Amino acid sequence: MSDQKEVVVLRIGHRPQRDARVTTHVGLTARALGAQGMYLTTRDTGVTSSILDVAGRFGGAFFVEDGKGWRSCISDWKAGGGTVVHLTMYGLNLPDVEDSIREHKRILVVVGAEKVPGEVYGLADYNVAVGSQPHSEIAALAIFLDHYYRGTTLSQQYSDARVTIIPSAHGKTTQER
Amino acid sequence: MSDQKEVVVLRIGHRPQRDARVTTHVGLTARALGAQGMYLTTRDTGVTSSILDVAGRFGGAFFVEDGKGWRSCISDWKAGGGTVVHLTMYGLNLPDVEDSIREHKRILVVVGAEKVPGEVYGLADYNVAVGSQPHSEIAALAIFLDHYYRGTTLSQQYSDARVTIIPSAHGKTTQER
Repeated sequence: MSDQKEVVVLRIGHRPQRDARVTTHVGLTARALGAQGMYLTTRDTGVTSSILDVAGRFGGAFFVEDGKGWRSCISDWKAGGGTVVHLTMYGLNLPDVEDSIREHKRILVVVGAEKVPGEVYGLADYNVAVGSQPHSEIAALAIFLDHYYRGTTLSQQYSDARVTIIPSAHGKTTQER
Repeated sequence: MSDQKEVVVLRIGHRPQRDARVTTHVGLTARALGAQGMYLTTRDTGVTSSILDVAGRFGGAFFVEDGKGWRSCISDWKAGGGTVVHLTMYGLNLPDVEDSIREHKRILVVVGAEKVPGEVYGLADYNVAVGSQPHSEIAALAIFLDHYYRGTTLSQQYSDARVTIIPSAHGKTTQER
């Protein structure tokens, strides 16, 4: 998919129950916009199974691994030659760094809930703001991936999908098999 | 801002408590990506005040009106010559309709929670999918606005901001006044 780029999301600081819906949106957005998987620093089988349920019906090979340590996750990624991009409203603005980031093919996108340890700002190769305004890590992830892939993943299809949505001007059309 | 376009979000089907955080993300994303305000079909003073609190500190004139009826909201918008864009994974794919939508300067973007009344699909001028995959209304809104404004709102500044974030490679820098 998308000339051999590898993108995985690392979701930090997820609190079960309180963050369940937002983290589910993070995971589904990651999958829909071209990431290959998500690491979650907390154990949460509910979130994990609801994302994998969608992936199972709509296709593709998206993975979720929960209970990962964020430090080892980041250091392993860097040791393997990958690049770490931390999305934060305090970072450099996306339009100013996206060309540079696009030269890297293996990206770990770090997305925090309320509190992100200060250490992450130092460990990240890029701290990136999707606009220097407070909004939503889901929105930031979506726009980051859309820019990184230059919009190509908006049209992706999965050959193994059990359910496929057929675009429609005024209704709901799905194909099941 | 952005050559006299007017964009307002209509959030349908918000359930207090259950949807509070997701709807807050919808409102903050709308503001950060260039919309002028949000109508909410339910009364929820908690969500309204937390969005207006951010807007008050970070600047701009974003409004939130809760307790609006969706039918009158849509029909008033159309009666005033505006265009209604409903974001749904069942719609026509964004890359195929964005040039056409960009010709319209007054846009009401309808964003549903779990259930959107079937009637909305008929009333909307455009039903638009941001990728034909299930993901997140926050992600869909973010990418729609970024495409509609051709990325220009990612760099917007507010002259009346009390708090301004200064982009930084590895830290957190804000300016207060």
